[in-house]
Amino acid sequence: MKISARNQFKGVVCGVTVGVVNVEVQVRLNGGEVIVASITKESADVLEIKEGIEVIALVKAPQIIIATDLGGYRLSARNQLQGTVTKIIHGAVNSEIDITLSGGDLVAATVTNDSVDTLGLNEGQAATAIFKAGSVILAVC
Amino acid sequence: MKISARNQFKGVVCGVTVGVVNVEVQVRLNGGEVIVASITKESADVLEIKEGIEVIALVKAPQIIIATDLGGYRLSARNQLQGTVTKIIHGAVNSEIDITLSGGDLVAATVTNDSVDTLGLNEGQAATAIFKAGSVILAVC
Amino acid sequence: MKISARNQFKGVVCGVTVGVVNVEVQVRLNGGEVIVASITKESADVLEIKEGIEVIALVKAPQIIIATDLGGYRLSARNQLQGTVTKIIHGAVNSEIDITLSGGDLVAATVTNDSVDTLGLNEGQAATAIFKAGSVILAVC
Repeated sequence: MKISARNQFKGVVCGVTVGVVNVEVQVRLNGGEVIVASITKESADVLEIKEGIEVIALVKAPQIIIATDLGGYRLSARNQLQGTVTKIIHGAVNSEIDITLSGGDLVAATVTNDSVDTLGLNEGQAATAIFKAGSVILAVC
Repeated sequence: MKISARNQFKGVVCGVTVGVVNVEVQVRLNGGEVIVASITKESADVLEIKEGIEVIALVKAPQIIIATDLGGYRLSARNQLQGTVTKIIHGAVNSEIDITLSGGDLVAATVTNDSVDTLGLNEGQAATAIFKAGSVILAVC
Repeated sequence: MKISARNQFKGVVCGVTVGVVNVEVQVRLNGGEVIVASITKESADVLEIKEGIEVIALVKAPQIIIATDLGGYRLSARNQLQGTVTKIIHGAVNSEIDITLSGGDLVAATVTNDSVDTLGLNEGQAATAIFKAGSVILAVC
């Protein structure tokens, strides 16, 4: 699959919650982390989403927020993956940050340079990659 | 309307599915393609969204994923518009890709330079612009 | 809280609408504006979201659209905050635009340079920051 979404997480569906218009799908990554995706019910039906099938969870880099210290706050975002900053590429306005999860998966996030400075982001630093369930697209073969 | 969303697709509402909190709206573009938008029920009520009315579907460029080969995968994203890459603007971290649809509409996507390289994106190449229903904002006059 | 989301609006929950999968939360900012967030029901339960509690509404800069003139159009986006452009930082492909709201809150948006040109954005200009309820993450202490 040749597709521009920087984050392509392979996993297996391990839970499905059905609403009227939307469906929430839990995907266990090969590395062990669980990602939650919110997709429309029509898509879930067409793709025949059910527990046990293999999927790829796609997330664009600009959809991902990076936290280095939540300071006691809890977030509504369903996806909060802990890892280590392993690469920083600086641009004029934005930087790309790569975070390697404990399970081995890599998360790429695009954040503004101001955020890189404010967080004092450095390679080797612990960080959490955060994104909403609604940011995830599922791919089924 | 002077608004920064790079993608402003004119069309006519050709379908509405009502949920408890969200409403799914289908919009037929002047070029023939159909876009699906997921908006809140309150917005649908306030804007009096119904079949037959003219709307503009707004999508920001960073919300759009580009695929050149799905390799047999099917995606949960409701919007998958096929076209041809007609322009590439390179930045330090991100590039802007313009895709012209068969109906004539233009789709602008912002993707990382790594993705441009991985996909081997070139002008003249066939490509699909992919975005979730939840990325679409509807404008009504 | 050290987190990369450029927009971190402090406020108090002033309304909650519960759906089957999603919950809509209204947050009154300290400056007086009201932001609407759409989060999953499970998150709302875990975070014990209810009227009167203090929250921080997080929104990434690329999720925000800027309008200078809606030309009679009304938008489905639940969040439309009026203010004044107070800063523009130009990059190769994207620019960052800061809008100061009447209540004093600052909104940072990332838009393409083409949009900056098309809108003729300048410091001191009146502008509206627009984003969907689904783009908002809530943080609770």
